[in-house]
Amino acid sequence: MTTPLPRSFAQALGGFASGADTPRDFLERCIEEIEARDPEVKAFTAISLEAARAAADASTVRWHEGNPLSAIDGMPVGIKDVIETSDMPTQMGSELFEGWSPGYDSASVHALREAGAIIVGKTVTTEFAATRPGPTCNPHDLTRTPGGSSSGSAAAVGSGMLSGALGTQVVGSIIRPSSYCGAYGYKPSLGGINRGGSHDYMSQSCQGVLAATLEDTWQIAIEIVQRAGGDPGQTGLIGPAVLPDAKMPETLAFLETPGWEAATSHAREAMERALASLRKAGIKILTRKDSAAVAEVEEILGETLPLTRKINAWESRWPLNTYVDRDVTKLSKGMVDRLHEAEAMTVDSYRENIARRAAIRAIYARLGQQVDACVTLSAPDVAPVGLESTGNPVFAVPASLLGVPALSLPLARIGALPLGIQAIGFLDADADLFATAGSLIEAIGSIQLG
Amino acid sequence: MTTPLPRSFAQALGGFASGADTPRDFLERCIEEIEARDPEVKAFTAISLEAARAAADASTVRWHEGNPLSAIDGMPVGIKDVIETSDMPTQMGSELFEGWSPGYDSASVHALREAGAIIVGKTVTTEFAATRPGPTCNPHDLTRTPGGSSSGSAAAVGSGMLSGALGTQVVGSIIRPSSYCGAYGYKPSLGGINRGGSHDYMSQSCQGVLAATLEDTWQIAIEIVQRAGGDPGQTGLIGPAVLPDAKMPETLAFLETPGWEAATSHAREAMERALASLRKAGIKILTRKDSAAVAEVEEILGETLPLTRKINAWESRWPLNTYVDRDVTKLSKGMVDRLHEAEAMTVDSYRENIARRAAIRAIYARLGQQVDACVTLSAPDVAPVGLESTGNPVFAVPASLLGVPALSLPLARIGALPLGIQAIGFLDADADLFATAGSLIEAIGSIQLG
Repeated sequence: MTTPLPRSFAQALGGFASGADTPRDFLERCIEEIEARDPEVKAFTAISLEAARAAADASTVRWHEGNPLSAIDGMPVGIKDVIETSDMPTQMGSELFEGWSPGYDSASVHALREAGAIIVGKTVTTEFAATRPGPTCNPHDLTRTPGGSSSGSAAAVGSGMLSGALGTQVVGSIIRPSSYCGAYGYKPSLGGINRGGSHDYMSQSCQGVLAATLEDTWQIAIEIVQRAGGDPGQTGLIGPAVLPDAKMPETLAFLETPGWEAATSHAREAMERALASLRKAGIKILTRKDSAAVAEVEEILGETLPLTRKINAWESRWPLNTYVDRDVTKLSKGMVDRLHEAEAMTVDSYRENIARRAAIRAIYARLGQQVDACVTLSAPDVAPVGLESTGNPVFAVPASLLGVPALSLPLARIGALPLGIQAIGFLDADADLFATAGSLIEAIGSIQLG
Repeated sequence: MTTPLPRSFAQALGGFASGADTPRDFLERCIEEIEARDPEVKAFTAISLEAARAAADASTVRWHEGNPLSAIDGMPVGIKDVIETSDMPTQMGSELFEGWSPGYDSASVHALREAGAIIVGKTVTTEFAATRPGPTCNPHDLTRTPGGSSSGSAAAVGSGMLSGALGTQVVGSIIRPSSYCGAYGYKPSLGGINRGGSHDYMSQSCQGVLAATLEDTWQIAIEIVQRAGGDPGQTGLIGPAVLPDAKMPETLAFLETPGWEAATSHAREAMERALASLRKAGIKILTRKDSAAVAEVEEILGETLPLTRKINAWESRWPLNTYVDRDVTKLSKGMVDRLHEAEAMTVDSYRENIARRAAIRAIYARLGQQVDACVTLSAPDVAPVGLESTGNPVFAVPASLLGVPALSLPLARIGALPLGIQAIGFLDADADLFATAGSLIEAIGSIQLG
């Protein structure tokens, strides 16, 4: 088994029940870590200590009385700063929204509060969850990017400042920073977690979870969905009230994805070791070399990044056009360029793009008849040096375009730096993916290289 | 042919091109009507005359130079006050949002501006586009409701204060007020017009158009969609750049819907006359008595109102819960009751409801193999007396639950009061419905009763 990150919340519940520990004490340990690390990591845009302490005290009373609101009652969490909160501004990594607040909570934040979770702070996002980085550094090496766009959420969880955090992904914004920062990262099936009150409007946008353990990850997601559902009209995440039992898969597909070409030798070696462990555990691994179905999927995955970029550009036309009207000087050049790209497109070309996406999704879905899940890397390498880019999303984008669930499992390290192994599932079978992931964690253990 | 409403914009284009009329003059005629009528009709929450005049002058120059931006360049329009505008507050019929502005335009409003339309003002909505009425009166009889929730949009268009307006519908909020106020009303297929920046989050929510003529209705919708698309991930309204040519249908279904029981004898007579005209024009009309497919659809339509209410209640859990947290005293009792109803529901019961909805939609879709469109009333009667209720949505809710396009055609009058004949189409075949509606208008003409 891998060593759990310091702030596993599920593992603290026994102490809360026995009285040996309390949510308030748990929060204070998080605050200690935040005070020690955040001045250099810069994961937060806002922290609400007074409200957090009051909420933790209320949670402590509930646990003492044996009436916690849920299995995440008292969990300290962070909220990516594109998701609205009533008590802290929502600034979206943009000067245009400096100090801005809508005055209310998003659906997910409200659900977290209902479940007793402690909203500690807002976490840094790239500008509008797109490209321009915020100030956050990688907690494992401050000269490196934490990844993006859920930069602060990944850094806060990966460093043990928090047990969990909300993120969003439309290209690689949960899986990539989770990989770089050593957090568990979960991008659900499309519509799995209600996006109401989150500024992520695109058709591939998902709200997801970054957390210290697989158990914490599931618990945050399921507690939200029980209270807020998925996106309107969608079934939302379906599964048991606690983490599904680990279930050994019979067959997995190893997907190189277009990322394999970009992967470093260390990263490839980490993946090869993971595959060797899985084979040793008796799991059959299909690859492009021995399976026509896998080869067909590999073929179409080459389209996922350029197609995603075209779809996202059109879907960003609004609100970027109204942001530009408001004050173009407060937008990055990248955002303005994206708008110009979008304005050169037509709705007809967009229709062709989403039709192609639907065809790609259908091809991938057929693979589900042959394998329990797919595995690949979460990123082509550990976090790169430099804060000017949030890294390469190439391994994360397939699940985004496909609309299927993905988990980044922090099982590998190259030197002191984490690298995620990614498990990708099938539409609306998120609970099955968690069950498979439980077995992968057991079978792979921890991989140390370099 | 029915007499067009006074503010038909399409019919003014010839004058703009020849120089006999200008968009600024057209706007001034609207303003004259607004100044004469709105003090008593109360259709607007905000009017931006200075900006409207400046925009109309710019449009006048473009027409003069022979370079209009679109066929709605210069059209004076109103925006339902749940849809965001950069230059006027968005108050959603709620004290909670008094004076509130997000600082930017919705996707549709931005598209209208790109097309040269003149955003004259914000129009009254019921509280959060739900039940509690605003102050608007029916322009044809001030003692009567204009219908809701797109109350101000319908009253402004029906009285000739504007050529067109945006509305939204999740139950009956476009079709019903269009019927009561004598406007054309169009609720598109699900996702047909981009809802970005509109506070209508529910899975049946649609943004739609109310206008003076069928031609204006189509033009507003298609100009928006060419610039902003449909909802992200949807194809959006597909069709020609100008109103599709009228096309005589071979077969229509007359649907009584659960509304027939509630319809007054005058309203029934209006429908019977319309059906007689259609038969006389050579169209075959199927009814529940002579078609098993129609009978099956009639059977399931009985479920549409209660099922819609259950789905909407769950989907209103957020944001109502965060509104209540903010200030419960600023919400109506009806809104708070709806939240309590929603909080007693589970996500599992919601899943059952949307599964049932999907089954109902599939049954309706099969009827599309036998008929070109369906016809029925838009409301069980003319606008009822009193402003405390916006009337019965029973005839409008089927298309809302089915997710299919619907048009209210202002073809009947009982005394001086309008009543709509409704045409209902099939998913994403909105252009076909407009083509059929063109023929229905010709065949039915105007019906005067009482």
